[in-house]
Amino acid sequence: MTTVTSICRRASDASAQIATLTSGVKDAALEAMAGALEASADRLQEANRFDVDAAREGGTSETLIDRLTLTSSRLASMAAGLRSIAAQPDPIGEVVEGWTRPNGLSIQKMRVPLGVVAVIYEARPNVTADVAGLCLKSGNACVLRGSSIAVNSNKAIVEVLVEAATGAEVPQDAIQLIEDTSRASAVELMQAKGLVDLLVPRGGKALIESIEENGRVPFIIDGDGNCHVYVDSAADLDRATDIIVNAKTSRPSVCNAAETLLVHEEIADKWLPGALDSLGSKGVTIRGDERACQLWTDAEPATDEDWATEYLDLKLAVRVVPSLDEAIAHVNRFGTSNADAIVTEDLSAARRFVREVDSGSVFVNASTRFSDGGEFGYGAEIGISTQKLHARGPMGLRELTTQKYVVWGDGQVRA
Amino acid sequence: MTTVTSICRRASDASAQIATLTSGVKDAALEAMAGALEASADRLQEANRFDVDAAREGGTSETLIDRLTLTSSRLASMAAGLRSIAAQPDPIGEVVEGWTRPNGLSIQKMRVPLGVVAVIYEARPNVTADVAGLCLKSGNACVLRGSSIAVNSNKAIVEVLVEAATGAEVPQDAIQLIEDTSRASAVELMQAKGLVDLLVPRGGKALIESIEENGRVPFIIDGDGNCHVYVDSAADLDRATDIIVNAKTSRPSVCNAAETLLVHEEIADKWLPGALDSLGSKGVTIRGDERACQLWTDAEPATDEDWATEYLDLKLAVRVVPSLDEAIAHVNRFGTSNADAIVTEDLSAARRFVREVDSGSVFVNASTRFSDGGEFGYGAEIGISTQKLHARGPMGLRELTTQKYVVWGDGQVRA
Repeated sequence: MTTVTSICRRASDASAQIATLTSGVKDAALEAMAGALEASADRLQEANRFDVDAAREGGTSETLIDRLTLTSSRLASMAAGLRSIAAQPDPIGEVVEGWTRPNGLSIQKMRVPLGVVAVIYEARPNVTADVAGLCLKSGNACVLRGSSIAVNSNKAIVEVLVEAATGAEVPQDAIQLIEDTSRASAVELMQAKGLVDLLVPRGGKALIESIEENGRVPFIIDGDGNCHVYVDSAADLDRATDIIVNAKTSRPSVCNAAETLLVHEEIADKWLPGALDSLGSKGVTIRGDERACQLWTDAEPATDEDWATEYLDLKLAVRVVPSLDEAIAHVNRFGTSNADAIVTEDLSAARRFVREVDSGSVFVNASTRFSDGGEFGYGAEIGISTQKLHARGPMGLRELTTQKYVVWGDGQVRA
Repeated sequence: MTTVTSICRRASDASAQIATLTSGVKDAALEAMAGALEASADRLQEANRFDVDAAREGGTSETLIDRLTLTSSRLASMAAGLRSIAAQPDPIGEVVEGWTRPNGLSIQKMRVPLGVVAVIYEARPNVTADVAGLCLKSGNACVLRGSSIAVNSNKAIVEVLVEAATGAEVPQDAIQLIEDTSRASAVELMQAKGLVDLLVPRGGKALIESIEENGRVPFIIDGDGNCHVYVDSAADLDRATDIIVNAKTSRPSVCNAAETLLVHEEIADKWLPGALDSLGSKGVTIRGDERACQLWTDAEPATDEDWATEYLDLKLAVRVVPSLDEAIAHVNRFGTSNADAIVTEDLSAARRFVREVDSGSVFVNASTRFSDGGEFGYGAEIGISTQKLHARGPMGLRELTTQKYVVWGDGQVRA
């Protein structure tokens, strides 16, 4: 088994060549990779069965096994993801801005690849193809560090992708998997200073804490999602019900699911009981403030801890607020800058919420569940940044680039 | 004296209000601040004399005392800097991209302030006004931590600026100075996690090492500048001489000064002796490779250490290279991603250098000394980033922002 550092070094050595691949070469490689996933379905599903059988024997929950399983439709959507990445404009060489100075210097701010992008992630094997595709299109070498539960699936996927990519003029070391899934390998990756230009840790609290403690390479935190839906006094109430039901129940285990519902007191009596009935009929249990508990007797009293909790489950905290100001203050106090929504027909209220809520994605009259690279049209996503530097919110191709200033002159010197 | 943490907390508390100031308010405040600097010249120069006298008594070098001194023309240029920042377009609220999804969601990627920006810097008091102006215009609170040698000057400047700014509706805590210039105060600032959104350390190796060890807040390194000028076989040789003389001698102590000259072997015999004469007449001493030493007998032999050294002095390392490839490889091996230049009339050579040199700013036929926020037209600069995440090269107003996705819908929910 190759050490993490030597994998990173090979990626770093290959990065200059990957950076100069043309869009034509990269898109042809992505198409070949998509085709290869489809053509290798049997091989990939066989490898996946090893992982699934081992997980089941090890007593893994069926929810996790479901995420791990490579069905035909999931393979098809991995291939579709790669084709969708190929269809995106190439971010590399894009001139973001350009201007000419009084002395005649022409300055261009141009997107260039970061170099080596590493991602640590959990069970779902589709992430392997998404990350490989996004990194290739953005001219970066990628180092993948999946979880032990999916190691056979990931190995097979990477073999198939690399075979297709190298057949299409992409360097061998552009896509590499760290097969060692020990904690030590993750720490070695976090410390590969000078070899990794960006590390994205996609995982739970333990991983984030480990990277905050051990990280020596640049990283972007893909953190918690304590998302809010605020139903304003001027809300369209049917929309409000649809949005909170969707935001809470369409997939409660993900980071863009809603965790707290804030309701303006003027419409609480009229709307809240029915809305909570709809949520209850989907199996959602409620932790409410005093007013919410009065209006819906099945609710349990909420504590401050509830406002700060990402349940990732069919639970919802509910608070009745006296004003828009109070709603904004609540979101800014307890939110995690991931995704927060207002439901209102009042333009001024919408504009204030948009301006004053400090969040990566702010939605007006739409579900927080749209905070997602695919839903934003990025083909796939490398993660959702909950930090402010470099990238914030769903990260697509552009977030995998840095820039260089290119300055064209005619012999100018500085006075 | 107030503790660093409480200063940062006040900045953080004020940041939401600063973020929503309109361009009109901010520009009027910047104009008032510029006017106040001019009107307070006597008071500022008196405070500055305390610092200068103390520095001279303490045996500080005249070079440093020169940088510390607030002459009338420096005060005028500080005021001009603030007016130039006011004249820049407001980065806040700028929609960088926007598009509509097939489901009708309108997505806007909008620039918003970071929140609290802190800067640790050295002697020059003009940085105080530059940073305060850039942070205000970009909607951020700023925390300034200057050096002990300039503490009276900085105090006076901040008092004048705050007085003018608060008179123009800017919150009191928008511009704050840490008067405690101990090492402990710098470390406390580096560790003010959750209160500082960006820290820019502008200083030498010791500061960078300290922040790499102690930093718990997001930071951007303003690092070394081992800058190169490569004179290609197809160079206009007069331009080449002008550019290397300017890049080396116009201000040798700064990070965008050239440290190594690379010369294509085909023109070395013809051009190098004369060019080195010109440099020698300006007091530059040469460390050369074998060929350079043959061509110019006053040169001392260079070692690998010379290629890696930022002299910040009237010294230049000179190497004769057999090809453009070798020149690019040398820059990528020894450079610090700050600023590197090619002198050539050959378009293909220029395009390859631009594409393949991994640097924050790549110049064609211009001096590396232009790698500077003011020279790029940014009014002033917060520093020069030598890292790849968030910002690279000279940082102006846009680099002091993050983004939020603003998504407008009509009740959309996710399938």
